[in-house]
Amino acid sequence: MIKLNLNIEINYLIDVNGADFICNIHAANTHYQVVSMENLHINQSIPYRIDKDLKHGNRYLRFTALPGPLKIIYTATIEVAHYRIRSNDLMEVPVRNLPLSVIEYLYPSRYCQSDRFIRLAIKEFGNLPQGYSRVKAIQEWVRRQVTFTQNVSNSNTSALDTFIEQQGICRDFSHLMIALCRAVNIPARFTTGTDYGANPCLGPPDFHAYVEVYLSGRWYIFDPSGTAIPMGFIRLGTGRDAADVSFATIFGNVQSQSPIIHAVAVEDSKFGFVAPYYCEEALSTDDERPLPYNPSGN
Amino acid sequence: MIKLNLNIEINYLIDVNGADFICNIHAANTHYQVVSMENLHINQSIPYRIDKDLKHGNRYLRFTALPGPLKIIYTATIEVAHYRIRSNDLMEVPVRNLPLSVIEYLYPSRYCQSDRFIRLAIKEFGNLPQGYSRVKAIQEWVRRQVTFTQNVSNSNTSALDTFIEQQGICRDFSHLMIALCRAVNIPARFTTGTDYGANPCLGPPDFHAYVEVYLSGRWYIFDPSGTAIPMGFIRLGTGRDAADVSFATIFGNVQSQSPIIHAVAVEDSKFGFVAPYYCEEALSTDDERPLPYNPSGN
Amino acid sequence: MIKLNLNIEINYLIDVNGADFICNIHAANTHYQVVSMENLHINQSIPYRIDKDLKHGNRYLRFTALPGPLKIIYTATIEVAHYRIRSNDLMEVPVRNLPLSVIEYLYPSRYCQSDRFIRLAIKEFGNLPQGYSRVKAIQEWVRRQVTFTQNVSNSNTSALDTFIEQQGICRDFSHLMIALCRAVNIPARFTTGTDYGANPCLGPPDFHAYVEVYLSGRWYIFDPSGTAIPMGFIRLGTGRDAADVSFATIFGNVQSQSPIIHAVAVEDSKFGFVAPYYCEEALSTDDERPLPYNPSGN
Amino acid sequence: MIKLNLNIEINYLIDVNGADFICNIHAANTHYQVVSMENLHINQSIPYRIDKDLKHGNRYLRFTALPGPLKIIYTATIEVAHYRIRSNDLMEVPVRNLPLSVIEYLYPSRYCQSDRFIRLAIKEFGNLPQGYSRVKAIQEWVRRQVTFTQNVSNSNTSALDTFIEQQGICRDFSHLMIALCRAVNIPARFTTGTDYGANPCLGPPDFHAYVEVYLSGRWYIFDPSGTAIPMGFIRLGTGRDAADVSFATIFGNVQSQSPIIHAVAVEDSKFGFVAPYYCEEALSTDDERPLPYNPSGN
Repeated sequence: MIKLNLNIEINYLIDVNGADFICNIHAANTHYQVVSMENLHINQSIPYRIDKDLKHGNRYLRFTALPGPLKIIYTATIEVAHYRIRSNDLMEVPVRNLPLSVIEYLYPSRYCQSDRFIRLAIKEFGNLPQGYSRVKAIQEWVRRQVTFTQNVSNSNTSALDTFIEQQGICRDFSHLMIALCRAVNIPARFTTGTDYGANPCLGPPDFHAYVEVYLSGRWYIFDPSGTAIPMGFIRLGTGRDAADVSFATIFGNVQSQSPIIHAVAVEDSKFGFVAPYYCEEALSTDDERPLPYNPSGN
Repeated sequence: MIKLNLNIEINYLIDVNGADFICNIHAANTHYQVVSMENLHINQSIPYRIDKDLKHGNRYLRFTALPGPLKIIYTATIEVAHYRIRSNDLMEVPVRNLPLSVIEYLYPSRYCQSDRFIRLAIKEFGNLPQGYSRVKAIQEWVRRQVTFTQNVSNSNTSALDTFIEQQGICRDFSHLMIALCRAVNIPARFTTGTDYGANPCLGPPDFHAYVEVYLSGRWYIFDPSGTAIPMGFIRLGTGRDAADVSFATIFGNVQSQSPIIHAVAVEDSKFGFVAPYYCEEALSTDDERPLPYNPSGN
Repeated sequence: MIKLNLNIEINYLIDVNGADFICNIHAANTHYQVVSMENLHINQSIPYRIDKDLKHGNRYLRFTALPGPLKIIYTATIEVAHYRIRSNDLMEVPVRNLPLSVIEYLYPSRYCQSDRFIRLAIKEFGNLPQGYSRVKAIQEWVRRQVTFTQNVSNSNTSALDTFIEQQGICRDFSHLMIALCRAVNIPARFTTGTDYGANPCLGPPDFHAYVEVYLSGRWYIFDPSGTAIPMGFIRLGTGRDAADVSFATIFGNVQSQSPIIHAVAVEDSKFGFVAPYYCEEALSTDDERPLPYNPSGN
Repeated sequence: MIKLNLNIEINYLIDVNGADFICNIHAANTHYQVVSMENLHINQSIPYRIDKDLKHGNRYLRFTALPGPLKIIYTATIEVAHYRIRSNDLMEVPVRNLPLSVIEYLYPSRYCQSDRFIRLAIKEFGNLPQGYSRVKAIQEWVRRQVTFTQNVSNSNTSALDTFIEQQGICRDFSHLMIALCRAVNIPARFTTGTDYGANPCLGPPDFHAYVEVYLSGRWYIFDPSGTAIPMGFIRLGTGRDAADVSFATIFGNVQSQSPIIHAVAVEDSKFGFVAPYYCEEALSTDDERPLPYNPSGN
């Protein structure tokens, strides 16, 4: 079990009309990622609400900010005890056995136009043995094709662009990997969190984007940009692609500052100190365990 | 109340490997669209299953087809008593009051890149009074810009393409209207059904694509292509755009024939015969009535 | 006659491999834009060559830069006596009468995908009386649709993007206007020069991009971004779009600084001082006066 | 020397307004491709004109068709004695030595967005030895990536689309190869002609699209789709991409029929009968032999 202290601070200057916010900065609270303590501070005296997306476990902080400075500080202690499994034991789930709630992650989305990658994906990955190793092969392919480069992509950049221009950041790597998985009928989704142990060349700790792939009835973590240690990720939100998951969706005119993020492993009174490390096993923080599909049981 | 008899027949030739199907040809069963009788016939002796998407009411027929001919016949009697309201009474719901389940219909999707239309939509529609009339104005704008033309668009065609090339079919009109609604923060979704009373120039009855927009706490029907009588639509599925909703998603190699569809109004023993007609009121077949957002109740 | 002193300074830092340059910073020398004096200074002792594109009058400075700092200073005195004509006298030239050398400016190019705008252009401009006023109407339409905004477009941005996102700089305005002209069979080309009298809000004098349209047998200046005084433009290069015309095309790795540009009207000993002003007449600096097309003369 | 008889018949039905045509169905007449006899028949009694593009040797038949049926028959006897050279002797020409007239074939165009392929092309081909073998490697790469498939691409399809979807026809193969060549600074252009010896599975003889690449001071033929025998190609036109070169550019409303094309090798009284065959040597039909670039000669 890994215990992490998380600290997120975001700052805005709101214009005279105020602005509505939908923030996804709360750590997901699942059976495998337990938020043991959390605290939210907003510098404005305004009502807020936290909506929980029961399907994904995402939590959304919603409020209407007043004109002027807005500072939000979220602190939490999170205990992550991943569901771990020998990666080679993981199998792809045939489409016929996928639960309905997972089917949408087979379909193309705004930034993951999997429909256009079908021929490519079949050619590159169609003959590989199915299972974890095939997903790994897709991840490695993306990592070979794309070079981590900042300031070359933007909020318009999609998997198509990244495939052509072969550069981008974690968001772009993730979109391309997702598109390729879906193109060979492997459900894949976009997940945001905080990174851990990122290469210091990339700057201070930051929000991170990675991929979850549905194998053997559960969503497993993949980190196509390879810039951080997956075991240290704290999951915030998950969705079809970056269109669904943003740490702050803002309706109004505001000036933004860069978020300030700290995520550090700390000692647990019972389990002691465990630092996240690269491991061979597959990791999941996901609760979703739908019943197996049983056609004859209709 | 309108009573409709629906008959859908779809035919395929499946190759030697068989094929998995996810069909959305069952009429949605809601409080306002009641399926009073239905029957499904598949020519192959195979197990099947019907999954229900609780969020939208979509029903998915799932099975694995054997090699050879496949014929599916779905017949149903549907009683549609729309929720009807004076359209001018309908108001937009401020983002802050939208239920979480509706928020995703504000975000861009595969074929509705609303993020790229924001400036345009604000310029064209930003100063109009909010409410039903604004949505109507968006629909009329789409109808003026786009000419109904068959065989010029395909499964790749998105709202961007339709906006530029200004031609397409019901699917394309719908994608463009949805993108523009979302661009001014009005939730909009893509709905499939069967048409009714379509201009005979457009050929025999067919599957149809139209739009549902969230106003005053409910999803209301809009038909941007204007090719049929909304009161006669039988809703099959709804989703973010055509990527989510297809009458048949097929995993495998098959040859397809055009579907054969009949939807006719029939006499009801109690209410008599009512033919669908163009009406001024707004229509909804949607059950979803989420509780109002109440921030102070946090 | 307007006499202008032009001063262009560009600075680079060349890496250890050196770099090949093709610069288009020499003022075009035509019957109507006479370069009476010019001087080129390069800080490196390297051979160079000036190639002249006989079709357009563009002059290209070509050299191979050595590693280290590179400074190029071009100074010139230019006497511009535009070919001027009452704009309402200008007529469109039917395709059948266009000289072959002009035909390519009817075709789509990298950033001006006129083929995709045909329906739109016909709808918006197809019924307008042909001639100068129609081109003016296209220019005004672009100016209404697009808002001058810096730092939102880049070297990938095409007319399609500008049409959708409705913002950009002089390059983007020009691409969109060109695409729309070509879509209704009016030859249009992309021209670079130096601006004059630009709104000080837009910063210091800079390179400028504008449009030349072929009417009544000659290329006339249009300035869709409307940010400067066309009479003061000094033409450098012209081509199908920005892919063809760049003040510096560089093959190698270099660091760039912003160019420093001065263009000022000065007193002429004979004609005195004339400052550029907005005028109603149409202006051309173009020499090209092909013979009229005469089919029977074959 | 190969002697070919060419017969092209094209048929249209012109609507009541007539239509302007610019046809490029005349064989190019160069030092290496000599048109020894030709005949043009138009069923309408209308004036026409043949414009010659001096730069490329393209010939354009221009006329205004009257309402009603239009039939054009072009017959010619063409003697092709390619400039032939051992392919391994061909070298790339450094940008600094390229003649100005060739430079435009380094730049991106409507269907060959070479600017977006730079990273990819450098990664795949940047480390290969320069020269003919590198161009060959690009051709082979395109042939491996793309599968010849009819009816999946259209007049909008660009190199980007073909790269992603990996299927298309000769036009699409050519656009992708051109884009990749330009991305590594090798001039490449789009050439149309008639095919010869095409795989009968692909249907009757047809217009063909292939590539010319500038090596060692001359344009050499490459056939990325590999569907026919290059030695039997009769060159009609050449340009930056398909936007520039069409066998018929039509301004007006017409109904088209498929062109009927015959190209057969025939016996020459002096040289006898030589059928085109696949050969190892590089082939050119191009006249253009610009003087070498000589910077010190400025």
